[in-house]
Amino acid sequence: MSVEAILKTHPRPLIADAAVLVACIDECVVCAAFCTVCSDACLGEDDVAAMVSCVRRCLDCADACVDTSRILSRQTDPDRPTQASAVEACLAACRACAEECERHAEHHEHCRLCAEQCRRCEQACSELLAAMSSS
Amino acid sequence: MSVEAILKTHPRPLIADAAVLVACIDECVVCAAFCTVCSDACLGEDDVAAMVSCVRRCLDCADACVDTSRILSRQTDPDRPTQASAVEACLAACRACAEECERHAEHHEHCRLCAEQCRRCEQACSELLAAMSSS
Amino acid sequence: MSVEAILKTHPRPLIADAAVLVACIDECVVCAAFCTVCSDACLGEDDVAAMVSCVRRCLDCADACVDTSRILSRQTDPDRPTQASAVEACLAACRACAEECERHAEHHEHCRLCAEQCRRCEQACSELLAAMSSS
Amino acid sequence: MSVEAILKTHPRPLIADAAVLVACIDECVVCAAFCTVCSDACLGEDDVAAMVSCVRRCLDCADACVDTSRILSRQTDPDRPTQASAVEACLAACRACAEECERHAEHHEHCRLCAEQCRRCEQACSELLAAMSSS
Repeated sequence: MSVEAILKTHPRPLIADAAVLVACIDECVVCAAFCTVCSDACLGEDDVAAMVSCVRRCLDCADACVDTSRILSRQTDPDRPTQASAVEACLAACRACAEECERHAEHHEHCRLCAEQCRRCEQACSELLAAMSSS
Repeated sequence: MSVEAILKTHPRPLIADAAVLVACIDECVVCAAFCTVCSDACLGEDDVAAMVSCVRRCLDCADACVDTSRILSRQTDPDRPTQASAVEACLAACRACAEECERHAEHHEHCRLCAEQCRRCEQACSELLAAMSSS
Repeated sequence: MSVEAILKTHPRPLIADAAVLVACIDECVVCAAFCTVCSDACLGEDDVAAMVSCVRRCLDCADACVDTSRILSRQTDPDRPTQASAVEACLAACRACAEECERHAEHHEHCRLCAEQCRRCEQACSELLAAMSSS
Repeated sequence: MSVEAILKTHPRPLIADAAVLVACIDECVVCAAFCTVCSDACLGEDDVAAMVSCVRRCLDCADACVDTSRILSRQTDPDRPTQASAVEACLAACRACAEECERHAEHHEHCRLCAEQCRRCEQACSELLAAMSSS
């Protein structure tokens, strides 16, 4: 899935280069879904006491990604500080979640997959921030 | 994107047939993203006064889809009535949004794309409800 | 806090008796906040392995309450099935969360407070459903 | 309503001074509710074409406030950059929404009430950021 097709039909100018914006929204959407699964999968593991930080970081990251994907999906009369700070907050949540999930990647496959997705989303946020500051 | 790979690593038994469950989560995730774009695209159109119902249905549908995708993504100690009623609520929101978007499909391409996605999600919800009641 | 003051300034007719509608939105808003705190407080307890179901029910309930509070807050061109099914889904989530939190109410004060709030929200949902079906 | 009573039962140390933290969560929760009502009330006004920016800012602010209230409600193993950047993003969204709502405060009472709430939330975010950086 990608929001590319529908975003291209938006009547207003996009807030940033279409490819970079689409990539960031798409990664946020997928990252929110992966973090929600990973938080619950951690909760369902036998070693749940060791996974407490991971549950928490995944929940934060899912919330930040949903919020940011929504704010970035809106092109009508955008407020630059609102959008830039949302992307920065999402990047921070992705980084913290990736760091924690990477600690468990060898014994929990969901953590390995979630960490990879968080790093992709962190990268997409970073590239969008660069595109927004240069435009 | 699909939650299939990560959902298959969950340590608990899935609440329904994996393919049907994955399809419903995936459609909810995409539908939330499409409805968020469509609500804002409607808001950005010159004929916004004619699009008021459509903005509203899209916002409801986006909220219902995020909520339902999250509840369905959790497999740990599920509560059947919570899950079934979330899917029913999502189905109702998708149907109402599809009906409204279809009215604008000829003059607004985002409405046509959004209506199609809402119908796919409505169908996926319907199939998951059937799978849940037979298991 | 209450949405009463701002809801009374809405230009459209309310979808139900104002007092019953306001009570339901208010309880949903508070319940989402309480369930979010309780899910994390459970996660921070020494006996987290015994609190897994409670974390999960609280997360479901928080999601359902946010979703329902938003859908109910909208009065413009409402779709009755979307609204009624959202309230039913919220009621189910509140009931499941209350039942689980009540099991831990004696040893975890946050569970006792959360259970009480979930019961208040369940009751408010029930009263709104009655008001919606009679109007 | 306030999360004060339940937050005080959390087993972990709070991420900031209790009164400042509670005030920020409470204001975020109320602000999300007010912005959701105001966005829909704007959509229901006869002059909806003049209210487009206001609908959009209210939706952004509601999303940022829900996200931030959830991240701040969690005290278990917090990540400082995730929390601080969430509060900064919320502050930016509140400021942008307040500025827009203030333009309509004289002719739409919901905008006046929403603007006041956004300013309270902006202030609470600012005070929490100060408390977090000094602790």
